[in-house]
Amino acid sequence: MASRLNRALLGLLLVVSCQRAPQVAEAPVAADPLPSWNDTAPKRAIVDFVARVTLEGGPDFVPVAERIATFDNDGTLWSEQPIYFQLAFAFDRIQALAPQHPEWEKQEPFASLLKGDVAGALAGGMKAIGEIMGVTHAGITTAEFEQTVKDWIATAKHPTTGRLYSQMVYQPMLELLAYLRANGFKTFIVSGGGVEFMRAWAEGVYGIPPEQVVGSGGKLKWEMRDTGPVLVKLPEIDFVDDKEGKPVGIQKFIGRRPLFAFGNSDGDHQMLQWTAGGSGARFMGIVHHTDAEREWAYDRESHIGKLDQALDEATAQGWTVVDMKNDWKAIFPAASP
Amino acid sequence: MASRLNRALLGLLLVVSCQRAPQVAEAPVAADPLPSWNDTAPKRAIVDFVARVTLEGGPDFVPVAERIATFDNDGTLWSEQPIYFQLAFAFDRIQALAPQHPEWEKQEPFASLLKGDVAGALAGGMKAIGEIMGVTHAGITTAEFEQTVKDWIATAKHPTTGRLYSQMVYQPMLELLAYLRANGFKTFIVSGGGVEFMRAWAEGVYGIPPEQVVGSGGKLKWEMRDTGPVLVKLPEIDFVDDKEGKPVGIQKFIGRRPLFAFGNSDGDHQMLQWTAGGSGARFMGIVHHTDAEREWAYDRESHIGKLDQALDEATAQGWTVVDMKNDWKAIFPAASP
Repeated sequence: MASRLNRALLGLLLVVSCQRAPQVAEAPVAADPLPSWNDTAPKRAIVDFVARVTLEGGPDFVPVAERIATFDNDGTLWSEQPIYFQLAFAFDRIQALAPQHPEWEKQEPFASLLKGDVAGALAGGMKAIGEIMGVTHAGITTAEFEQTVKDWIATAKHPTTGRLYSQMVYQPMLELLAYLRANGFKTFIVSGGGVEFMRAWAEGVYGIPPEQVVGSGGKLKWEMRDTGPVLVKLPEIDFVDDKEGKPVGIQKFIGRRPLFAFGNSDGDHQMLQWTAGGSGARFMGIVHHTDAEREWAYDRESHIGKLDQALDEATAQGWTVVDMKNDWKAIFPAASP
Repeated sequence: MASRLNRALLGLLLVVSCQRAPQVAEAPVAADPLPSWNDTAPKRAIVDFVARVTLEGGPDFVPVAERIATFDNDGTLWSEQPIYFQLAFAFDRIQALAPQHPEWEKQEPFASLLKGDVAGALAGGMKAIGEIMGVTHAGITTAEFEQTVKDWIATAKHPTTGRLYSQMVYQPMLELLAYLRANGFKTFIVSGGGVEFMRAWAEGVYGIPPEQVVGSGGKLKWEMRDTGPVLVKLPEIDFVDDKEGKPVGIQKFIGRRPLFAFGNSDGDHQMLQWTAGGSGARFMGIVHHTDAEREWAYDRESHIGKLDQALDEATAQGWTVVDMKNDWKAIFPAASP
């Protein structure tokens, strides 16, 4: 009897004791991964899409290796008003470099810029912008440029909000990036902005490493100096990652068609079309700037971030359009200065 | 007594039963991660380097995000004799396309190629090679080209070994790639070969995804067709990823300096110098082709994979030089046809 009892006890205890020390931690109730998104159509479309492509055995399942998500930067991940932030960086560099260039006092577009007259400087159009970019983005090594950008992004503040530029990123998009990564997506920036400018801070701000940043760029020149090799930034455009340049850039730098893409302007139209043209389930999203109170409101008539044809196609094709004012609970991170 | 006995039994069983179902699997004795490497200096240098940069708190520790490893392809990860395999692909394409081009029978370099006279075809030098690449690598979409390469790599065999080209990869390097990845490294190809050619099979053969393949490439053109958007390969060179182009390509496509780099020819010299020029511990390796019996033996005088200046610098700087014959137990994978 004792032997039988003990054997029964043994069986019971093996169960009980191992239940007391579970080998797999109990799953906590999942927290909302997108707390800054209202429970409106865009959030539901995102969560539904991610659920479908990650459901193993489901009809829309996509292997982890093919979960490529591409995001425009200016106006999609951070603000772009009243001027592209990279241009603000360039203007600040002109101020910083002015003491070494006394000739700028009489030379446009620098003379106007140094007097604080941005409109006057930009009256020179693309030629003026080219000259500003040339003296601020070229003629130095990639390492020197990176340090200059890092110093600027750590301290420079936006003229109207007073926030650090790194705090003018969109909190809902930070959550979306993290949510996609938690679901096996590889997140990339595909932006018309300068690739070396973005790489200097994208990892710290977005969690996107340099090798996942695609952007416009200038030619580079290898030089062996006494102190070792350097790469010098030349004042010559190598690649413009905008409009039809975006799918070209995606092919050149990533080599895989996105499964998920987000933009905010006609400059992203072809990237969204390229994404939509892939087989199986695909997600195309647009940030529509509709919140003049918390951010800015602009679309078809804007000089920056013009959203016209892509908005028409989004409507026609049923792409997801985020109405900033109604779909986002918060715009910027709360913990910012 | 029964109760006491049972309590004693309970305590014992809690221990025993949970030992039988351990929560953490016992670590097996670590298998040699580089079994095809002889226990000579190169293997010891690799294992020592990886141990140093992954030792948390150690003086040479490098965070995972910065563990970038770049590998040349031709002659470093797979063979490159008697001609670059991509050229063999191009020659096979000429044969396949010939029925659609009756004019090739009287037109060099095609006429010679179609008669099997490779030397005669290549007598036309770079101009001839340019024409061959133009008709085989351009004028089609990226998707069509990818499929063509996939079909070829699945069936084409090397003229002297009779192996599939995908089975002419170096077994010791496959092990090295896996070993580095297991230690948090991100492995990249940085090759003078065509980026679209390599991306078609690098993931299956090396475990290196398309977005981690840097190579030479032609310009691409976006086209919206009735069937949807395509990218057309143009017969115009966009980027040559060789010699000083390698550090430039690393900066353009990766944006971070390698921690670990491997090449086999003077075409890799600047990549190795760029790697060596970084701060802290860095690993620079060269595959020296010394095994005429199991593979090929060539270096300073070779037309393909010439290794001269980089070999001198490797010796002077103490970079790791792999003597294929003495340092590798096996050259190619054993399970190959």
